Amino acid sequence: MLTMQDALLALTKYWTDRGCMVVQPFNTEVGAGTLNPATILRVLGPEPWRVAYVEPSVRPDDSRYGENPNRLQTHTQFQVVLKPDPGNPQELFLASLEALGIDIHAHDVRFVEDNWANPATGSWGLGWEVWLDGLEITQFTYFQQAGGMTLDPVSVEITYGIERIMMALQGVSHFKDISYAPGISYGEAFGQAEYEMSRYYLDDADVDSQKRLFEEYASEARRMLDARLPVPAHINVLRCSHTFNVLDARGAVSTTERAKAFGRMRGLAREVAQLWAERRAELEHPLGLAELPAAAPEPAEYPKVSGTRQLLFEIGTEEMPPSEVTKTADAVRTALTEKLAATRLGHGRISTYATPRRVVAYVTEVQAMEPDAERVVRGPRKSAAFDAEGNVTKAAAGFARGQGVEVGELHDLDVDGVEYVAVTKPDPGRGAAEVLSGVLAEIVSGLRSDKNMRWNDAKLSFTRPVRWLVALLGDQVVPVAVSSLATGRTTRVLRTAAQPTVEIAAAEGYLDLLRIHGIEADPARRRERIVADAQRLAGEVDGTVDVEGEAALVDQIVNLVEEPTAIRGGYSADYLELPAEILTTVMRKHQRYLPVRDADGKLLPYFVAVANGAVDEDTVRAGNEGVLRARYEDANFFWKADLQTSPETMKAELEKLAFEERLGSMAQRATRIGRIAESLAETVGLDGDDLTTLRRAAELAKFDLGSQMVVELTSLAGTMAREYARRAGETEAVAQALYDMELPRSAGDPTPSTVPGALLALADRFDLLAGLFAIGATPTGSSDPFGLRRAAAGVVAILRDQPELRAITLPVGLAAAAEQIVAQGIEVPEKALGEVADFAVRRYEQQLVDGDHDHLQVAAVLPLAMAPAIADETLAELQRQVATEGFADLVAVLQRVRRIVPADVEAKYDPSKLTEPAEQALHQAVEKVGEAPSSLADFVAAASVLVDPVTTFFEEILVMAEDEEVRAARLGLLATIRDLAAPVLDWQALGTSLNRE
Amino acid sequence: MLTMQDALLALTKYWTDRGCMVVQPFNTEVGAGTLNPATILRVLGPEPWRVAYVEPSVRPDDSRYGENPNRLQTHTQFQVVLKPDPGNPQELFLASLEALGIDIHAHDVRFVEDNWANPATGSWGLGWEVWLDGLEITQFTYFQQAGGMTLDPVSVEITYGIERIMMALQGVSHFKDISYAPGISYGEAFGQAEYEMSRYYLDDADVDSQKRLFEEYASEARRMLDARLPVPAHINVLRCSHTFNVLDARGAVSTTERAKAFGRMRGLAREVAQLWAERRAELEHPLGLAELPAAAPEPAEYPKVSGTRQLLFEIGTEEMPPSEVTKTADAVRTALTEKLAATRLGHGRISTYATPRRVVAYVTEVQAMEPDAERVVRGPRKSAAFDAEGNVTKAAAGFARGQGVEVGELHDLDVDGVEYVAVTKPDPGRGAAEVLSGVLAEIVSGLRSDKNMRWNDAKLSFTRPVRWLVALLGDQVVPVAVSSLATGRTTRVLRTAAQPTVEIAAAEGYLDLLRIHGIEADPARRRERIVADAQRLAGEVDGTVDVEGEAALVDQIVNLVEEPTAIRGGYSADYLELPAEILTTVMRKHQRYLPVRDADGKLLPYFVAVANGAVDEDTVRAGNEGVLRARYEDANFFWKADLQTSPETMKAELEKLAFEERLGSMAQRATRIGRIAESLAETVGLDGDDLTTLRRAAELAKFDLGSQMVVELTSLAGTMAREYARRAGETEAVAQALYDMELPRSAGDPTPSTVPGALLALADRFDLLAGLFAIGATPTGSSDPFGLRRAAAGVVAILRDQPELRAITLPVGLAAAAEQIVAQGIEVPEKALGEVADFAVRRYEQQLVDGDHDHLQVAAVLPLAMAPAIADETLAELQRQVATEGFADLVAVLQRVRRIVPADVEAKYDPSKLTEPAEQALHQAVEKVGEAPSSLADFVAAASVLVDPVTTFFEEILVMAEDEEVRAARLGLLATIRDLAAPVLDWQALGTSLNRE
Repeated sequence: MLTMQDALLALTKYWTDRGCMVVQPFNTEVGAGTLNPATILRVLGPEPWRVAYVEPSVRPDDSRYGENPNRLQTHTQFQVVLKPDPGNPQELFLASLEALGIDIHAHDVRFVEDNWANPATGSWGLGWEVWLDGLEITQFTYFQQAGGMTLDPVSVEITYGIERIMMALQGVSHFKDISYAPGISYGEAFGQAEYEMSRYYLDDADVDSQKRLFEEYASEARRMLDARLPVPAHINVLRCSHTFNVLDARGAVSTTERAKAFGRMRGLAREVAQLWAERRAELEHPLGLAELPAAAPEPAEYPKVSGTRQLLFEIGTEEMPPSEVTKTADAVRTALTEKLAATRLGHGRISTYATPRRVVAYVTEVQAMEPDAERVVRGPRKSAAFDAEGNVTKAAAGFARGQGVEVGELHDLDVDGVEYVAVTKPDPGRGAAEVLSGVLAEIVSGLRSDKNMRWNDAKLSFTRPVRWLVALLGDQVVPVAVSSLATGRTTRVLRTAAQPTVEIAAAEGYLDLLRIHGIEADPARRRERIVADAQRLAGEVDGTVDVEGEAALVDQIVNLVEEPTAIRGGYSADYLELPAEILTTVMRKHQRYLPVRDADGKLLPYFVAVANGAVDEDTVRAGNEGVLRARYEDANFFWKADLQTSPETMKAELEKLAFEERLGSMAQRATRIGRIAESLAETVGLDGDDLTTLRRAAELAKFDLGSQMVVELTSLAGTMAREYARRAGETEAVAQALYDMELPRSAGDPTPSTVPGALLALADRFDLLAGLFAIGATPTGSSDPFGLRRAAAGVVAILRDQPELRAITLPVGLAAAAEQIVAQGIEVPEKALGEVADFAVRRYEQQLVDGDHDHLQVAAVLPLAMAPAIADETLAELQRQVATEGFADLVAVLQRVRRIVPADVEAKYDPSKLTEPAEQALHQAVEKVGEAPSSLADFVAAASVLVDPVTTFFEEILVMAEDEEVRAARLGLLATIRDLAAPVLDWQALGTSLNRE
Repeated sequence: MLTMQDALLALTKYWTDRGCMVVQPFNTEVGAGTLNPATILRVLGPEPWRVAYVEPSVRPDDSRYGENPNRLQTHTQFQVVLKPDPGNPQELFLASLEALGIDIHAHDVRFVEDNWANPATGSWGLGWEVWLDGLEITQFTYFQQAGGMTLDPVSVEITYGIERIMMALQGVSHFKDISYAPGISYGEAFGQAEYEMSRYYLDDADVDSQKRLFEEYASEARRMLDARLPVPAHINVLRCSHTFNVLDARGAVSTTERAKAFGRMRGLAREVAQLWAERRAELEHPLGLAELPAAAPEPAEYPKVSGTRQLLFEIGTEEMPPSEVTKTADAVRTALTEKLAATRLGHGRISTYATPRRVVAYVTEVQAMEPDAERVVRGPRKSAAFDAEGNVTKAAAGFARGQGVEVGELHDLDVDGVEYVAVTKPDPGRGAAEVLSGVLAEIVSGLRSDKNMRWNDAKLSFTRPVRWLVALLGDQVVPVAVSSLATGRTTRVLRTAAQPTVEIAAAEGYLDLLRIHGIEADPARRRERIVADAQRLAGEVDGTVDVEGEAALVDQIVNLVEEPTAIRGGYSADYLELPAEILTTVMRKHQRYLPVRDADGKLLPYFVAVANGAVDEDTVRAGNEGVLRARYEDANFFWKADLQTSPETMKAELEKLAFEERLGSMAQRATRIGRIAESLAETVGLDGDDLTTLRRAAELAKFDLGSQMVVELTSLAGTMAREYARRAGETEAVAQALYDMELPRSAGDPTPSTVPGALLALADRFDLLAGLFAIGATPTGSSDPFGLRRAAAGVVAILRDQPELRAITLPVGLAAAAEQIVAQGIEVPEKALGEVADFAVRRYEQQLVDGDHDHLQVAAVLPLAMAPAIADETLAELQRQVATEGFADLVAVLQRVRRIVPADVEAKYDPSKLTEPAEQALHQAVEKVGEAPSSLADFVAAASVLVDPVTTFFEEILVMAEDEEVRAARLGLLATIRDLAAPVLDWQALGTSLNRE
């Protein structure tokens, strides 16, 4: 058996053989190997750096007295940094697993999207967690920024979680049982320290002393920065960090203190990074400068192709996030279509396919050549080209010479009525390969995702590194050079294949060639296979998989594998005593397993995992089952622990949970939500049982965030609240309200089924929106860390689903929220509330457009969207009206009125000045309409009387009379009609389409 | 080339292959791998433990900004702990060097005595520094005590100094040039950190902050001890220690603070150790209990030998300290002689030989058997053995039965006039092997040295482990069992031999057999060979080795090697510009090299090193030359730096040097010495130039302890003072006085040549003695850390050599010292001063006995030893007197007087009561002698008149007259004679030997 120390030695050996330097763990506590200066400082600047080291990582908060099988106050990381990215870090990593004796052919090793960000230090990277049969064993990150500085070159950071790997390899279920050295278990070696340090961190460390230490370290770090000594400064920042972590584990950090401490540490860490980079520059970069691969040579010549052939274009990447796989395929298809359209090259159908590791474009019937064409070049104006005598001027002669033609070949050209001289020149068609070379290069350079990264390429940027390109026109390679990449005919199949690279003879056989190597490039066919296999496996145990219900998960799985291999695993039926949501959440979110259910939809103790490639199914099944067992064991532990705890006790825990620095703790937020909900209840006149329910639910709002289960599985917030509330003897209504208040969780999710729940859900979201907009933490681009878009969409969805709450308009709800936020001493600018409202209206608009509503009609009702239910009703009415006779006339009349009346004219007039019959008739019709009707239906009914008088008015009356008073009266009359119509619809937005019908 | 990281991996691999667990460096700064809990705590208690780890050891005081080639604030230790001692740790260690690619056959690898003690934590061990061609590369210690607790079992601690090893292996002379990893030098990897941390430790760390941190850590350690959590307590003690080291490096620790801090850390560290041991016991020793080798079986039968044969007895050890080699051989010879004498076994000459690894005893002509003898067993008294009728009583019958004889075999036995019955039984002689088996076992169990240790043996204790035993009587093994050891015929030769164990056919050929394997067991012959080879090598460069002058060094070398291989090396003649004492001190003390001189005694740039075994001479020469070069380079650096510094500036440094916690700093001590010297000068009426010299020298006393050179090479104290004083423009007299004050350095060393020097030297030693006795720090057993025996011997030697200083008796000198110590607020009990005086007298007695003086005469003059010069003169006079006629009579008369007069009789009488002529004559004779003459010569001259009257007095007078008054007068008369004689000699001590001549 490979002991843990053998494993550490094997990894050390493996990486030193690949040019890594070994350093020692840092001699002050670090929370992760990343914080060792050998990573966090060395990734900065242009020097190359390859290092490997063990790092016992100390996380006081994970102290469990050695009792939890998977959690330790000190766990062992093995850290590798490769700077620059060597181009094949994943392959290097896989070989390192083999060095540990892991048969990567038998196991299911996968790279599953997992990005890393530490905003506190201005650091982030993109990458994966690496799964071994469903167990996360390694973090793999392309480090993009550190200390606020963009990294150039980029470093690859590989962090192995050694205890986890050892538990999996040795098949033990408690870290203490790991065989650490021959004859010595982990528990025997480190058990006492684990217990005692847990005691220290959780119970015994002196809080006041730790606080004083924090100050000492922070001051010393400050002084060292001033002395321009980044190394001792960094050590002191690390000590601050550890001390803070100790205080946190002791439960001794208030929200304010946390915010302050983080602020200080962030500032210091950034300064350390910058100073380090400066110092290295001053030292003239002792390790030299890292070099990236050179640019690929531009194609020198292009192959000739005869007849029409198929084009295959394959962009090979490292594992893309599932959400990017489909998007990228679509984007490539669009780009290819547009770019080919801008050439004269004839071609047939364009289709794209994608897997996590490749985006493939296929173009049928590509012509061998562009057809020849002519090109007209415009010269001087004709008037300047010939003098009075009709002789050619110097200007025209010069133009002809410049174009390489005789003067006699100039001809006339009329451009928008102006005459020029011009030359018409032949424009011979280029060969297909040449045309495609340029187009394909642009497509690769143009690849973009929601979140892009850099790797060992000087110019490219994408969701994950692009590692190879294949471009074949028939059997000919289309030469393409993009930065350091050049096309060939070599594709890559599964990394675990005996021969992981394969030559492609011709474009035409590509998809089948991949299939021979196990890979299904067509997502639709992958999906079919996954679904069919999953149902077959479920059927074998008289179960089924809810493919409809799990559609999003299935989509994700489709984009996580190239060669789907469905494997059924099981778990102990004992766990079925846990709430089903817990079980399915763990399966879905953490493991991407499909739950198996019986005919009634009840869970069966099985799941379907989808591995990648021809793995050893028993091995992979056992691994996945073990992972699930450990997770369920944890969940069971939390569940039982939580059941011993009252909701009130859990709620008290919210004091310790930070929400947002300036907005205080989660407890403060929960209090605000309760008060806002009560205010909204008043707005809608809630009473009776509902009011009682609301008040109790408001008291408990968000209590389950203090449960161990939700701390672990945040997506179970609300679900656990309902479960725990029920079991604590709360009424079903209260339990349901607490569940409802977290709804909707995402677009398309149900909204609250009860009014108290809806009010709490609204309060929750109004607080979030008002609070974060108030402090300026608005979403930008793809960054929406607090989920404000989802919150706004949720508000809209709730209000649309609960028309009886229409009194709660967006401004009303936001004002109620603002009141509570202000009460907490935080300024809420009026402008911010306006922005939130607009922001919510945009979400509403999006919902309508996504609902296939006519965009003009949507625009027309948007002014009403402060009360989305009203806007909804108006839109429905509008749709009825447009089908009725006469509505188009009314719209035309109203639009004509709006067009003629300047915006600043007020809706008042002196009727005595209206003397003409047509204007008097209109005046009377307006009087008949009376007070502005509030709904579209009422308005249409009332305003139909206006259509004829307005028409007559415009035929017979000159609005702009010379007499000022008359003119004012006439404009005032029209403005009155305008304003009567205004509240019910944005008539102008409807455009003229109706008129033309 | 083996890089440093390769070396660390190779060592890790090597030791894990031998059952060591690997742990990580500790995650808080430690000054040495020993302080990692994997050593300092794990060596406690009965659990087995084998561990290996890298430990970057942080020593702020060694910060040199990365500029010193050999000194770093963080150096890399590789630490191995083997618990229990595996029995062959040296062999394991040597093989680890081979694992590093070191050819131990070519190199000279030696184990040179080096013990480790950390009194602050109650920890110590015995062992060696391991030399590689003269370079110390490893500390090798048998850990005996930690945290005040005796270790059982004992642990072996091996600490490799990795940077030194790498510099030697890679042949580089600056640590920055070590190849750390392929293509990366140590300097490139760690240079910046080395510089910045040096800055931090030496210049920039905030002193006040560090002081506060010390308090926080110490308090937290205290709290954790109270919470019974030794692990976090230990971490906090380590932090205290590091913080203290930082403060020290910043020069911010006063003597008082140092004492206080050490006191706290010591107390905490001991408590941590004890608590750890308790906790492990409470946990029931999770790693089990270590087992030591079982006892060897007692011999079941003994071989028969015929005729007389030779006995060979070889005790095989690990490398003994040179000083123990000869002593042990002597002790074994004495013990063997005595123990054999207590048997009836006939034998010839007993001789012993010794090398560092073996003590050999030879006994010629050992008889095959003890002769038979008889044994008389005493029974009951004859009166109880027979009843009135002469019949045997039950008692006698029982006795006979018990002895297994018939009643008729009882015979009479007269014991001191009482008659018993007895039995005479035959006592057959035992075979030689049986006799020897018991004797030899006792000799091994009885081995003792000045400082003894334990190893993996349950019972034995000696200077270093005993690993094997050979006992051969002729060609037969004499079976001996001592604890876990049993004799055989297998000896061990050099560890680097192709076959390191050799069978011995018979005792007779042993010495030659060893010679075949290169080993010369006879120290005398080793010495001859070393001297001859050294002279030959020196002669080759027209030089010579001062064998007489270097006798002590040669003796040491003889006992450092088994197969002396003299090698001449050289050094740059440039270094000859340094004072010769520096060069020779480095050669002798640090390297055990013999200096080579020209005919005039001037140093030549050569040395002779004596390696062990058939090494590759070029390799070893190069290695030794490199070591010497580095040391001379350091010395040169210190020399030049010191010459830039005035004596006064150096003296100011003494403030920072602790002397002894309670007695203050070295500066305080130097001040005391100066004042004491001036007081002594007054006692002897010093004046003129000498007084001027004394005063200036007193101002500068000990200033060179503040020089870099003496900090490095403490034995140069005084020597450097003279050099630096001369160069600073002091008078030659002052320079010489400063040199003199350190004399004598050891027994046999010259004493000061000048009076001011002698006064300072006396003051120095009186201060040391009075101070340390005052605080109770008196030497015990072999422990004399402050060298008080040497100091006392020095006082005596100086006073003997300077009779003109006789006014300075021991009490006078000690009183002068006490005055200064008391002035510093330290109590000096009168009793303590008395103890010091007695202590010094014992040293004086020892000097006389060592000087081959008659021990009775020595005893006779000891009462005068408070002024050793007077005692010396008296002794000389006594030696003259004993040769004269009549002295014996005087002695006899005086002794007779002393015997008859009870001690409490006073020396006064009423002459009027003396009426008999004999007593009147004696009275008149006593009157004639008059006042007590102060010297022996005067007394003898004066007292000769007493001989006849006393003789007559005793013949004619009954002292014990019945008349009380008469009796009182007669006794008073004799007491007067007694007291007249008393001051000049202890007449009684002379014994009766004189009388018998």
